[in-house]
Amino acid sequence: MTAPISVVYKSDPVRGREWAALLAQHAPDVDFRMWPDVGDTADVRYLVAWQPPADLATTFPKLEVLFSVAAGVDQLDLTSVPAHLPVVRMVDPNLIASMAEYVVMSVLMLHRDLLAYLEFQRAGKWNEMRVVPAARRRVGIMGLGSLGQAALERLKPFGFPLSGWSRTAKTIEGVECHAGAEGLATFLATTDILVCLVPLTPETRGILDARTFAALPAGAGIVNVGRGGHLADADLVAALDSGHLSGAVVDVVSTEPAPAGHPFWSHPKIVMTPHVASMTQPQTAAFVFLENLRRHQRGEALLGTVDRARGY
Amino acid sequence: MTAPISVVYKSDPVRGREWAALLAQHAPDVDFRMWPDVGDTADVRYLVAWQPPADLATTFPKLEVLFSVAAGVDQLDLTSVPAHLPVVRMVDPNLIASMAEYVVMSVLMLHRDLLAYLEFQRAGKWNEMRVVPAARRRVGIMGLGSLGQAALERLKPFGFPLSGWSRTAKTIEGVECHAGAEGLATFLATTDILVCLVPLTPETRGILDARTFAALPAGAGIVNVGRGGHLADADLVAALDSGHLSGAVVDVVSTEPAPAGHPFWSHPKIVMTPHVASMTQPQTAAFVFLENLRRHQRGEALLGTVDRARGY
Repeated sequence: MTAPISVVYKSDPVRGREWAALLAQHAPDVDFRMWPDVGDTADVRYLVAWQPPADLATTFPKLEVLFSVAAGVDQLDLTSVPAHLPVVRMVDPNLIASMAEYVVMSVLMLHRDLLAYLEFQRAGKWNEMRVVPAARRRVGIMGLGSLGQAALERLKPFGFPLSGWSRTAKTIEGVECHAGAEGLATFLATTDILVCLVPLTPETRGILDARTFAALPAGAGIVNVGRGGHLADADLVAALDSGHLSGAVVDVVSTEPAPAGHPFWSHPKIVMTPHVASMTQPQTAAFVFLENLRRHQRGEALLGTVDRARGY
Repeated sequence: MTAPISVVYKSDPVRGREWAALLAQHAPDVDFRMWPDVGDTADVRYLVAWQPPADLATTFPKLEVLFSVAAGVDQLDLTSVPAHLPVVRMVDPNLIASMAEYVVMSVLMLHRDLLAYLEFQRAGKWNEMRVVPAARRRVGIMGLGSLGQAALERLKPFGFPLSGWSRTAKTIEGVECHAGAEGLATFLATTDILVCLVPLTPETRGILDARTFAALPAGAGIVNVGRGGHLADADLVAALDSGHLSGAVVDVVSTEPAPAGHPFWSHPKIVMTPHVASMTQPQTAAFVFLENLRRHQRGEALLGTVDRARGY
């Protein structure tokens, strides 16, 4: 009889209980423990976490892989994670689909002036505005990884002229692709609705700032489904108040939950949702994790392994 | 030299001036006159109108075709239109595309709980709700004409189980089709988000009422992009207030503009827009009209001719 495979889960406990039930049923050889009730940590081989404990290496001396419960790993302080330890992000097809839904919803809301109509409704005003044909509304996505590409795929049938921007050059059929610092100005100047889906790294922190907004055409809209750290909150408010930007849909904010009094709560040109654009679903995430666990046992490459130097 | 073809336009004057400019450029043989400055009406052969004058037959004794500026003709009192006069509705591809955009936007907003999040935002609450996978959210469209079918086509890639209901039986790939009075109960019982896109006729007037809402599963959402006459306003408010329905997006209302004090203005679970889901665009509508005018001159069938008995 082989020893059970010890896994510690350190994230939302409600979802954790669903992971526990699914793994108990489908992987009885896994000894799944929920933080903080983890017993002896000396034999723990796998950690599934939103954020690991500060003293990761001493708490789990035998850890073999650190799994992020999220699509990103920017919430992890990678400098505190031993260099030899593989870090794996969650590549869950449901998570990709739910992000694409949210992006299409937000783009259509901005395209069809829904934020203005919500304001008119609250004010009791029946104000028609002319519909702009999709062919004249240019949508640009920053970040052309699996999330960005899935969003572009869903946007294609509507007939928006589509463009994308990424760190390194990519080619996507039907999408005008720009890359690097030298491609940014052209990308921004030809984007009426800008969607931020880049990973948060030192290079992209604060990328949605006054300079970026000024480079967009007048009347542009913003969708931030990256991280709060991408966006300079005060710059967004200023660009909306000046009228240069027409509206923003943000799913993330610099501090989460957004504190009382944060201007995004009450700004009439901002729709803010509580980091729900793309949520890990226990029903699928537990199986994505399990697939990676079996790959690791067989000595195969893991899906979603993070390039520590690149940061994602 | 042939006599000019006299056309009277009786609808929104701002768009009318765009029609005038486009026709002057592309059809100089058309004598385009805007109501009420129409001069001698005895020789007018074509009327383009939202609503014709009450004394249509005496005002325009030589009228050959009545064109509706809208996709529907329910705003016309067909009983006052001479039986021999062909009535043509607007079949504009841009109008179909803009309707599909609005339907997808509304379905995604209801699917992703956006109405609840807007309420939370106004209340300063950071409340996450679990994302329901599209595969578990059944979307049903009442009305399987060109608008309904275009909306279904755009919804398909998201993975919603799709169904449709129409007066007479239809077959659409990937869509569970129901028809007639006998198919309605099953259609409603298996629809989580109901989109109304049927033409307004005596049979469909008030179809969105308490009985229909009761037949939907608990928590269902409603999108009314048909006509205000389809919806029993008070029944919708009651079904939302009881919690049986979760939210509604309505683009039309029984009286337009909605009067001050109408409950839809302030209801937290209703998003109301001012009849803009699908708007006739002069840039394309004028050419659709012109194509029909040429067909009529050549003695060919007109696109969008209304079946007077059926009412659409």
